[in-house]
Amino acid sequence: MKVTVVGAGSWGTTVASLVAKRHDATVWAREPGLAEQINDGHVNPLYLEGFSLPERLAATDDLKAAAETAQLLIVAVPSHGFRDVLRRACPHVPPWIPVISLAKGLEQGTLLRMTEIIRELLPGHPAAALTGPNLAKEILSGKAAATVVATEDLTVAAALQEVLHRGMLRVYVNHDVTGCELGGALKNVVAIAAGMAEGLGVGDNTRAAVITRGLAEITQLGTAMGGESVTFAGLTGMGDLLATCMSPQSRNRYVGEQLGRGRSLEDVLGTMRSVAEGVRTAGVAVELGDRHGLPLPICRTIQHVIEGKISARDAYDGLRNIPAGHEADPW
Amino acid sequence: MKVTVVGAGSWGTTVASLVAKRHDATVWAREPGLAEQINDGHVNPLYLEGFSLPERLAATDDLKAAAETAQLLIVAVPSHGFRDVLRRACPHVPPWIPVISLAKGLEQGTLLRMTEIIRELLPGHPAAALTGPNLAKEILSGKAAATVVATEDLTVAAALQEVLHRGMLRVYVNHDVTGCELGGALKNVVAIAAGMAEGLGVGDNTRAAVITRGLAEITQLGTAMGGESVTFAGLTGMGDLLATCMSPQSRNRYVGEQLGRGRSLEDVLGTMRSVAEGVRTAGVAVELGDRHGLPLPICRTIQHVIEGKISARDAYDGLRNIPAGHEADPW
Repeated sequence: MKVTVVGAGSWGTTVASLVAKRHDATVWAREPGLAEQINDGHVNPLYLEGFSLPERLAATDDLKAAAETAQLLIVAVPSHGFRDVLRRACPHVPPWIPVISLAKGLEQGTLLRMTEIIRELLPGHPAAALTGPNLAKEILSGKAAATVVATEDLTVAAALQEVLHRGMLRVYVNHDVTGCELGGALKNVVAIAAGMAEGLGVGDNTRAAVITRGLAEITQLGTAMGGESVTFAGLTGMGDLLATCMSPQSRNRYVGEQLGRGRSLEDVLGTMRSVAEGVRTAGVAVELGDRHGLPLPICRTIQHVIEGKISARDAYDGLRNIPAGHEADPW
Repeated sequence: MKVTVVGAGSWGTTVASLVAKRHDATVWAREPGLAEQINDGHVNPLYLEGFSLPERLAATDDLKAAAETAQLLIVAVPSHGFRDVLRRACPHVPPWIPVISLAKGLEQGTLLRMTEIIRELLPGHPAAALTGPNLAKEILSGKAAATVVATEDLTVAAALQEVLHRGMLRVYVNHDVTGCELGGALKNVVAIAAGMAEGLGVGDNTRAAVITRGLAEITQLGTAMGGESVTFAGLTGMGDLLATCMSPQSRNRYVGEQLGRGRSLEDVLGTMRSVAEGVRTAGVAVELGDRHGLPLPICRTIQHVIEGKISARDAYDGLRNIPAGHEADPW
């Protein structure tokens, strides 16, 4: 099968490299010169410094050429550029082929999930999301991981599972696309909160409580939006949240940790090449919470810190002083 | 209120110290000489080396004297000694008073939860469990934490919440006693599995997947036994599991990590004073799985390692090679 991955960031390049072991894989790189480096040197120094890529992995900077030969299209562009790149690819995408999103975010303004954007721009194409606890560099190092391909039609899901499954990458299927995508996006906000707790040095009990109550908020919002609660307790919700909160590689956790240490958001983001999706997602979560009448105290507090209205220390004290009731209450 | 805590291990002593700030608290210590050290030196060098305890905290080695003055009884004895100590205290326990369990385990042989033992030995007394992500030493250091008091009657729960709540300890209530107790007990088995993954150095993706799939097993078993699935995603399930898996202080995580590094169980346990409940709970979980017809692959694999039938490395390879299906499947 000919598989095209649109976007040569760390995760797009990693998925393309895995697929290249058994299929014809092409990755489209936006950055000038990056396609040549992947083709000639089998490296991606911008996003995966120090890793060798498979020789069979082809790269191009020509979006039309990349799209028109695809039998399966994988879109690995962060949420803020997702619609724009997909719109440019659209006229060249062959009919009927499935389109998989790798992005973990929600569109600002429209509040749409990535598969909703796919359905809007490419109606009639099966839209799927690949999401789960997947730190790109660990997978590229050959360490085992589990992930989920989510699409409503479980027959299509099983076919995509077959394409993506590898010895060291266990691919589960799930029909709850809404739940899987929302978990992957919203978890980044909680990862910032958990990182902040770490930066403040408040201890493992508190970190565990922040992560747990944060997942409860995600689950409340996600089920209000049509996801199934069991999904948020699975690999795409809790699993992804855990990997993000445990890993020194996670960008969102890192942003939170630095905020917890007293740095400004501007200062932290100024030193990062890769995108920390949670910084944008916090505001989207708050808007969605308003729409569904949910308090979401952790998401709102993180948004206040991101907006510079309060410090990380104020955020922590505020959350700690909310009276505790029944565990199932939304506070 | 006169509160008696039976058992002067690290968590019993910590809870007694918190309660002592606003109530008359007495802790019963089994170990010879420990009561004197708590009374005279305000220290518990056996279990909480380096910490000062409140001067108001009283200790005794006389179980009868400790029990007969209690208006609230808290039992802080590990699951394997719980019934025996409570049976000895029984004749001296005043009528009607609530009894709270702090133990996170299940009784071997009977497979009973601790509040079931309380109900058997002290019928008519409200039975409750205090459980959640609570590393004793962090709480004694004054770091914030959240916990749950679980009892069927929410009026009693609210009264107990009032007794236990402190500025830095947020006490939630929950009516799902079965779910709260099973989460606290079964999580120790998953903590051993997560520690084992850490000891084997298999990466954060895999650790996140093991914890997530482990919680899914706990949830399957727990709901089959009458718990509510949302409880397992809360502080007493996921929250406690996270604190256990993240903390260098956790005994169960430590046992797993050492097994992952190739040490024998006998060797590891020989160097520990405190009890790693998960070592016993794994076998209980497997028996319960048989009773409810559940595969529980992670719990069973851990039990095989504990029995010395396979190595940690074999365990990991075996789990990794199970085919992946729908996320909701029990495998």
